[in-house]
Amino acid sequence: MEVEVEDCPAAAAAAEEVIGNEKTSADYYFDSYSHFGIHEEMLKDVVRTRSYQNVITQNNFLFKDKIVLDVGAGTGILSLFCAKAGAKHVYAIECSQMADMAKEIVKTNGFSEVITVIKGKVEEIELPVPKVDVIISEWMGYFLLFENMLDTVLFARDKWLADDGVVLPDKASLHLTAIEDAEYKEDKIEFWNNVYGFDMSCIKKQAMMEPLVDTVDANQIVTNCQLLKTMDISKMSSGDASFTVPFKLVAERNDFIHALVAYFNVSFTKCHKLMGFSTGPRSKSTHWKQTVLYLEDVVTICEGETLSGTMTVANNKKNPRDIDITLKYSINGQRSKVSRTQNYKMR
Amino acid sequence: MEVEVEDCPAAAAAAEEVIGNEKTSADYYFDSYSHFGIHEEMLKDVVRTRSYQNVITQNNFLFKDKIVLDVGAGTGILSLFCAKAGAKHVYAIECSQMADMAKEIVKTNGFSEVITVIKGKVEEIELPVPKVDVIISEWMGYFLLFENMLDTVLFARDKWLADDGVVLPDKASLHLTAIEDAEYKEDKIEFWNNVYGFDMSCIKKQAMMEPLVDTVDANQIVTNCQLLKTMDISKMSSGDASFTVPFKLVAERNDFIHALVAYFNVSFTKCHKLMGFSTGPRSKSTHWKQTVLYLEDVVTICEGETLSGTMTVANNKKNPRDIDITLKYSINGQRSKVSRTQNYKMR
Repeated sequence: MEVEVEDCPAAAAAAEEVIGNEKTSADYYFDSYSHFGIHEEMLKDVVRTRSYQNVITQNNFLFKDKIVLDVGAGTGILSLFCAKAGAKHVYAIECSQMADMAKEIVKTNGFSEVITVIKGKVEEIELPVPKVDVIISEWMGYFLLFENMLDTVLFARDKWLADDGVVLPDKASLHLTAIEDAEYKEDKIEFWNNVYGFDMSCIKKQAMMEPLVDTVDANQIVTNCQLLKTMDISKMSSGDASFTVPFKLVAERNDFIHALVAYFNVSFTKCHKLMGFSTGPRSKSTHWKQTVLYLEDVVTICEGETLSGTMTVANNKKNPRDIDITLKYSINGQRSKVSRTQNYKMR
Repeated sequence: MEVEVEDCPAAAAAAEEVIGNEKTSADYYFDSYSHFGIHEEMLKDVVRTRSYQNVITQNNFLFKDKIVLDVGAGTGILSLFCAKAGAKHVYAIECSQMADMAKEIVKTNGFSEVITVIKGKVEEIELPVPKVDVIISEWMGYFLLFENMLDTVLFARDKWLADDGVVLPDKASLHLTAIEDAEYKEDKIEFWNNVYGFDMSCIKKQAMMEPLVDTVDANQIVTNCQLLKTMDISKMSSGDASFTVPFKLVAERNDFIHALVAYFNVSFTKCHKLMGFSTGPRSKSTHWKQTVLYLEDVVTICEGETLSGTMTVANNKKNPRDIDITLKYSINGQRSKVSRTQNYKMR
């Protein structure tokens, strides 16, 4: 059984048949997922994929004879796990060209009767059923919220999830810590001060504003790690993804702070036992890495001193898939007194 | 002095002022160069940037009191080298948002009188002068021709270069060799045969068709390296970038061949002494790496045996920045007899 949604403009524009010169930015967002490389990276991220596999295979009771909706199915891997776990039917929605691959994969693996791949945008397609029992999705982006696919999951939840239905994962949290990063900051930021003898420091300003997605070594961590924000995917509203939260980071040693580092955890609290994973610098690294926000100042912090402030996170008004981050931080220590506001833009 | 070209659609669409939802694929091509990250990578590629720096600073006679055109100036680094080398005036054309940075960089470094940054498409802008003495450009893409910026350089040459003018670089060549690559081919291609227990081999077909840009270890090389095609940038026409050429690769040892590897060299023959660089697997690696074309067959080749065939290269009709490659190869050896045609698409 296959439901084709031909009116998905993104999929349409991304299609081979279309001359590649009339694509919108939304098309480009979806088109990037038409490339197999991005799916290869996600599938090979074993922290990510094994976690979902374990959640599904170890908790059949959540899927047995249930109607499942897979939001942003990609290659269909989660749908296949669910089908294998005994789902009555799985609707796998994917807008990119990968949907065609997913259909072929479902067929090749003999699940055509159980899994229906729907090529289209969640916001535009029709489901053959009024309600679903389970919504599963791997929607997380860099810094948890980049690319803003969460909105799509919430849309699907509000439209199709049965009253006693389950969203997987159902909890996500954003965390913050501070690191010493002299060497890399020198290489990434100060580099622009002298490029083959020329002053390109105007680019340095731009480089400072752009959060760096990279893997941080746990030994660089100077302070405690603080929980910034918890989201309950089963209850939250779209607006809850924009927020201002306070933080208080306490130094665990005498060191210098060059950057704050954000990362996220997700959990599946509806499992028989709590399951989930962390993308933090002390956990096995994932394709999400961590998000590094360089500070204008090098903060000289002494053990026990506090770097405190607030972080404001909001979708960019012009391009809602981008994220604007405002960081206010201050320290009034023996060796540095700083109070500053910095703006960042993830794009 | 600044010439602003406001009617560059790409730059306009990429501009902050524009809602990010009406971009064309051309806009996206240029927009990718609005990100500083790509310029950081290119500047930090010392083989690339030092080569241009040496060409320019060691050959002042080519630039002294000359009018120079920098095609695709990016941060303006080449223009700055030329100005420092005594150019009378440099026109730096850049279509992406980076043009605004380049203007600021030129100003910061005190070259506003010598360097004019023109924000716009080469094909659309007006130059304040009828002719230029030198055209310098770093136009090379992966596999030399990917992104097809060469056409833009040829357009500029035909429109503005004086009869006795020089193009830098003026020679480019494409080369081919064959490698043993069992392990990586397994990881990149065979991976799709069994993904967490599911058969995703339909994606394998797609993966096989996409040339892989990666750094090859010289120890993997099984055959000689053959010159495929030489291009004279000062004389060639745009059509010369599409071609079919024969190759004959002779094994230098008993081994298996999993892939053919293409790379390019560029040279500056107008220098006092020949200068240039290679992006081959035996040279210091660059951000261009090499281009790996995996073969359907694992070729069992004996020392002295020949893998021969033809390679056809052409711009994709739908998206001229993409490249279609057709490989015909055959071997009639003691241990393998193969004759096959494979199609690849760089996108």
